[in-house]
Amino acid sequence: MTEWLQKTFTLSRYRRGFHLVTGEVEQQVPELGDFKVGIAQVFIHHTSASLTLNENADPTVRDDFESHFNAMVPEDAPYYRHTSEGSDDMPAHLKAALLGSSLMIPVSDGRFLVGAWQGIYLCEHRNHAFGRTITVTVSGQK
Amino acid sequence: MTEWLQKTFTLSRYRRGFHLVTGEVEQQVPELGDFKVGIAQVFIHHTSASLTLNENADPTVRDDFESHFNAMVPEDAPYYRHTSEGSDDMPAHLKAALLGSSLMIPVSDGRFLVGAWQGIYLCEHRNHAFGRTITVTVSGQK
Amino acid sequence: MTEWLQKTFTLSRYRRGFHLVTGEVEQQVPELGDFKVGIAQVFIHHTSASLTLNENADPTVRDDFESHFNAMVPEDAPYYRHTSEGSDDMPAHLKAALLGSSLMIPVSDGRFLVGAWQGIYLCEHRNHAFGRTITVTVSGQK
Repeated sequence: MTEWLQKTFTLSRYRRGFHLVTGEVEQQVPELGDFKVGIAQVFIHHTSASLTLNENADPTVRDDFESHFNAMVPEDAPYYRHTSEGSDDMPAHLKAALLGSSLMIPVSDGRFLVGAWQGIYLCEHRNHAFGRTITVTVSGQK
Repeated sequence: MTEWLQKTFTLSRYRRGFHLVTGEVEQQVPELGDFKVGIAQVFIHHTSASLTLNENADPTVRDDFESHFNAMVPEDAPYYRHTSEGSDDMPAHLKAALLGSSLMIPVSDGRFLVGAWQGIYLCEHRNHAFGRTITVTVSGQK
Repeated sequence: MTEWLQKTFTLSRYRRGFHLVTGEVEQQVPELGDFKVGIAQVFIHHTSASLTLNENADPTVRDDFESHFNAMVPEDAPYYRHTSEGSDDMPAHLKAALLGSSLMIPVSDGRFLVGAWQGIYLCEHRNHAFGRTITVTVSGQK
């Protein structure tokens, strides 16, 4: 029988940049431990922050993500028209679209079935943000 | 009990650019209203158009998406070899890969559980396109 | 009744670049043929290789993907700090995040319900890599 779990919660507040939040997400859904096989979705309710899976060991990787996304999606590009909410706003929307608002993660034996080096990044693209709202939805067999 | 809904339909024809289509998608799947909890997938059957979730209020955000993606993925780059289908074709494939062909959206109480500012964008990357084919698949509990 | 299938396997080893692997993935999950309706996830366990759906016909499209991603995410950018694993390593992480580690594909009548031109790309971003680990998870009705 397939069962469902859905939980909405607020992450801690993070400064602009890329942050490893695997532990914080797992802590919110201890019920994941009951699923033998399934799929989990981690979804962010925002258009100026995003989620990705990437390298979980060396923190300079996250620094380089921030540097590269700032180079690839600059502030104050001459063609921006949506400028009323600050120089960091329109780039934040573009970065969020490039990285995505949803992570899909296979579940096996009560845990995220990911590679040894894969961790969940919260990608905070605004200079000043509150804690971001996340919904985790899991379907699977217990 | 988990139930499934799958519907394939054609969106209206849109000009090149980024377009808010939340309402048009919702209209095609009124059965979504019966799902108490679940996940919906919105999938596009094409390699030169894509889907993303982003800001649903100010239309200049969509204009800036078009400007920025044109700057980040230029036409007529000197290294393109796939040029026989027009200057807009290879950039369209690259933009589609960057944004993605699939949106995963949590479902709660009969509706898409998204943030207040999140809307579904059809990202049309070709100069001249027909209506794009979409499949919505929902699984969940009624 | 919703049933689940989950299989983890290793893809053939591919050189750096973009490779069409639809057939190789399908061959690993012949059980897909039993699902009348559902969703399949193809997930890669790595942070320096990724998956996308794109044009399956002209091989120069895949060449142009490699050229463009190399231009958009250069090696040896002056702001990279994570440089100890080689010039191709940090760009590989960034490319993987841009393209994503998970493909979600609707399933209908025992096959992937994709457009005529859509194929699964393995995006290999490292110069020297072993065969990559993939997990396919399918849920649906038989």
